[in-house]
Amino acid sequence: MSLTFHERLRAAQERRQSLLCVGLDPDPARFPEVVGNTPDTITAFNRAIIEATQDLACCYKPNLGFYLPHGRAGIEALAQLRDDVPSDIPLLLDAKIGDISTTTAAYAQAYFEAWHMDSVTVHPYMGHDSLKPLLDYRGHAVFVLAKTSNPGSGLLQDRRVADEGGSEPVSHVVTRHAREWNTHGNVGLVVGATYPHEIAAIRAIAPELPFLIPGIGPQAGDLEAAVAAGLDSDGYGILVNASRAISYASAGPDYQDAARAVAADLRTRINAVRGMA
Amino acid sequence: MSLTFHERLRAAQERRQSLLCVGLDPDPARFPEVVGNTPDTITAFNRAIIEATQDLACCYKPNLGFYLPHGRAGIEALAQLRDDVPSDIPLLLDAKIGDISTTTAAYAQAYFEAWHMDSVTVHPYMGHDSLKPLLDYRGHAVFVLAKTSNPGSGLLQDRRVADEGGSEPVSHVVTRHAREWNTHGNVGLVVGATYPHEIAAIRAIAPELPFLIPGIGPQAGDLEAAVAAGLDSDGYGILVNASRAISYASAGPDYQDAARAVAADLRTRINAVRGMA
Repeated sequence: MSLTFHERLRAAQERRQSLLCVGLDPDPARFPEVVGNTPDTITAFNRAIIEATQDLACCYKPNLGFYLPHGRAGIEALAQLRDDVPSDIPLLLDAKIGDISTTTAAYAQAYFEAWHMDSVTVHPYMGHDSLKPLLDYRGHAVFVLAKTSNPGSGLLQDRRVADEGGSEPVSHVVTRHAREWNTHGNVGLVVGATYPHEIAAIRAIAPELPFLIPGIGPQAGDLEAAVAAGLDSDGYGILVNASRAISYASAGPDYQDAARAVAADLRTRINAVRGMA
Repeated sequence: MSLTFHERLRAAQERRQSLLCVGLDPDPARFPEVVGNTPDTITAFNRAIIEATQDLACCYKPNLGFYLPHGRAGIEALAQLRDDVPSDIPLLLDAKIGDISTTTAAYAQAYFEAWHMDSVTVHPYMGHDSLKPLLDYRGHAVFVLAKTSNPGSGLLQDRRVADEGGSEPVSHVVTRHAREWNTHGNVGLVVGATYPHEIAAIRAIAPELPFLIPGIGPQAGDLEAAVAAGLDSDGYGILVNASRAISYASAGPDYQDAARAVAADLRTRINAVRGMA
């Protein structure tokens, strides 16, 4: 039987002693001059970032939103990633989908089959049946938005819902549902580094689910607090994402070295919290 | 000053005496043999459906999920739609997005600028700041998911949130926020035809917002009940969507006539509820 996403992720994390996920969000206007600033250079830039970080990263996370504006070049760059990322490192497509089941099945065909992504982020708003076509891919994984990193995420996510004998925030209701949806062991959660107290609360509800933690870097989440709150009892169970902080560490000809230095520093800081510095 | 989306939509609705939105969700396997069954025929098929329905439809709604599996051909077919749909009929991209603001701005660049879509559907889960880059396009519109048409939509959307002096479902909380977000008059809501009582409840909260109503046809929503519940005090204010019921009305060489007949019938049934049969 083939390995699950979570097993492959854990193997990549152990092999590299890293919980760092590198985001690949191309913005050709910010590419170094030596790379060029047209959509046709996206694949070359991604390759350079992958080459500079592949022994430091346990996952790569392209965000769909940064590929679509570039039309054919963007789509082809996404489809190219599986060939350019080492085969033992999983790919997580940040596309935040959520639609009726027939449409979700079409997205699964694009993301999991045509583009060979290993995992995708999803909105929980439409409920279980909207996600089932993705969850049925047992070798792939689905990361459900629980508490997102943006400043206004509390508007709905922090609203309190009545429950037996009390009330709890919407983000905790989503967390409980995500656990129920995990019958194939292929569900994770998205919890923002900007809300470490919420990471701790959600970890208490879902000790077994992997967390994708975005929001360090430009979003100014507290890396150490987020890692400490998110680690599972094994010292694993989290994917700490950095995108722009790595990719755009330098716009000069030294951009690969600069990206590598930021990634190495983040990996070390994460491991320090784990007592592995 | 140029017209808003809602003004352009209303003009198209009056000109054609139609509240029918035609969904364009290509599935080449279901295309008629005379069209062909490869991704390269998507644009030809879309053109044929548009040609057959353009005097009966007030809006066309492509769903992103049915284009992405076809790679370059899919993306190019999306970008082609603005040229192929009559210029006075708005295009609503059903992409159900919702991400942090920098990413949402990238989606806006793709959808509103590169592909010339006039409007897009969004998830409310991440709150106002996640949608602001779209809302800032005053000539475009944003349709916020409130109560979706799928069978399991109640899991979160029907949960009751405590409010001053009582409680109300999440979908109503979203509706109230959508009204607040409507400072530029460019917000609408998505409410499924499968829940006519909810359409009525949401119309009572938001008398002024346009509703996109999916879920008739294969999803078996009650067309007449949904229209009656959704109409605004003017007899407008709704977009009733049908996709598969029109596009795949026939797989024979008569598919354009069959699509037209279904569209004409839906338009008539909608108008009958409006007292305009």
